[in-house]
Amino acid sequence: MKIGVFDSGIGGLTVVKSLLEHRLFDEIIYFGDTARVPYGVKDQNTIIRYALEAVEFFKNFDIDLLIVACNTVSAYALDEMKQNAPFDIVGVVEPGILAAENSLPGTDANILVLGTKATIASKAYEKLLHRHDYYNIEAKATGLFVPIVEEGLFGGEVLNSTMRHYFGDMPPPDAIILGCTHFPLISDAIGKYFNNKSLLIHSGEAIVEYLQIHYDLSMHFDTTDLKLFASENPDALKAVAHKWLDL
Amino acid sequence: MKIGVFDSGIGGLTVVKSLLEHRLFDEIIYFGDTARVPYGVKDQNTIIRYALEAVEFFKNFDIDLLIVACNTVSAYALDEMKQNAPFDIVGVVEPGILAAENSLPGTDANILVLGTKATIASKAYEKLLHRHDYYNIEAKATGLFVPIVEEGLFGGEVLNSTMRHYFGDMPPPDAIILGCTHFPLISDAIGKYFNNKSLLIHSGEAIVEYLQIHYDLSMHFDTTDLKLFASENPDALKAVAHKWLDL
Repeated sequence: MKIGVFDSGIGGLTVVKSLLEHRLFDEIIYFGDTARVPYGVKDQNTIIRYALEAVEFFKNFDIDLLIVACNTVSAYALDEMKQNAPFDIVGVVEPGILAAENSLPGTDANILVLGTKATIASKAYEKLLHRHDYYNIEAKATGLFVPIVEEGLFGGEVLNSTMRHYFGDMPPPDAIILGCTHFPLISDAIGKYFNNKSLLIHSGEAIVEYLQIHYDLSMHFDTTDLKLFASENPDALKAVAHKWLDL
Repeated sequence: MKIGVFDSGIGGLTVVKSLLEHRLFDEIIYFGDTARVPYGVKDQNTIIRYALEAVEFFKNFDIDLLIVACNTVSAYALDEMKQNAPFDIVGVVEPGILAAENSLPGTDANILVLGTKATIASKAYEKLLHRHDYYNIEAKATGLFVPIVEEGLFGGEVLNSTMRHYFGDMPPPDAIILGCTHFPLISDAIGKYFNNKSLLIHSGEAIVEYLQIHYDLSMHFDTTDLKLFASENPDALKAVAHKWLDL
């Protein structure tokens, strides 16, 4: 099965990492819109416009499925993308919710959703969680985590003071949905902030689980042909991919 | 005189503020490329491409002069813009250097240049400072200041720990060039970090000084007609302008 992975930048490689680890696909086409990253500070119309341009990009490849790794795009543009694509499209919001549902004790669990400004403003996670009868939800825009991860500060005082700024003395929630592709890179620090008492839900792992339920993925491929595209500086994307994915 | 001001986003309004305070122009057309902000993390080819598109935008107006408020664009794309524009173009790098030169005791002064990753990588400030015989220069990419300002954190622990991360126990330099339109908004905090012993150079003030030397601006206008354009969400730009500029 040949799939596409779309992200606003390099963060979606954390999703690719999970896909590669589970060896579900023999060919992955990755496109990161690095020339216009980040999407999380932009508004809905712009995000939809960029997402539809990405659909056009993927029409050049004979893919069966497009995974939208970016939470912001998943939150705002999934319907519009589906209406304009000849292939299946799966975002990361619904898989994240299903992963929470499968792991949590009951619908009275306390759930903390973290995301970019745009993702949180969309209320996409809250709407879906409500539909699954979860109501103890705190959704927090933690946009500074994105540039902090991009500066490689996966721990240390800048990250700690930013966590204190966002979380204060909030008690550990039952689950934390890492609603941005950048956040798995600081999941250790976030978990530790809450004394490792919260279940952390990672989009990449959640989407693997989701795909295994919804698609016939009984084959496991020994190797995956990964092609990387970027709207600027594909070499920088490839360098990060080599580091993060151990290529 | 009718001028344009170009910035990658809303930060250039700090330059507009200085222009308005000095009442030098009767008409200002502002364009912020908010749909693709920030430029400071992008690479040279992309920055030049976006800058040339901005020149095309300003060709729709009968401007006499275009001020490039964005340091990253000033550092990378000024020559290409000049080659493609029927109007004068002034960036913020040279005025910043001249302001330093006019205020510093001598060429042995210690100068700290702060900017985005792209601005610092361009070495634009260092090259010009060397040409003016300054050699005690430290140039530092302090990119996290941009999203911190955009979150409105002009003081407090996140900013303080980020300053400690970047500056450590560096002794106060003689001058600090605030080489990004966002940085004047945290100039108080930066000044205080260095015990208010450093001269802070602000692009907006520097460009006013530069324009007064290089252009015949003897008239002072009672009112300035300010038109604001943005590549996404002009209403958000206008809201910030009303707040920052006391419109």
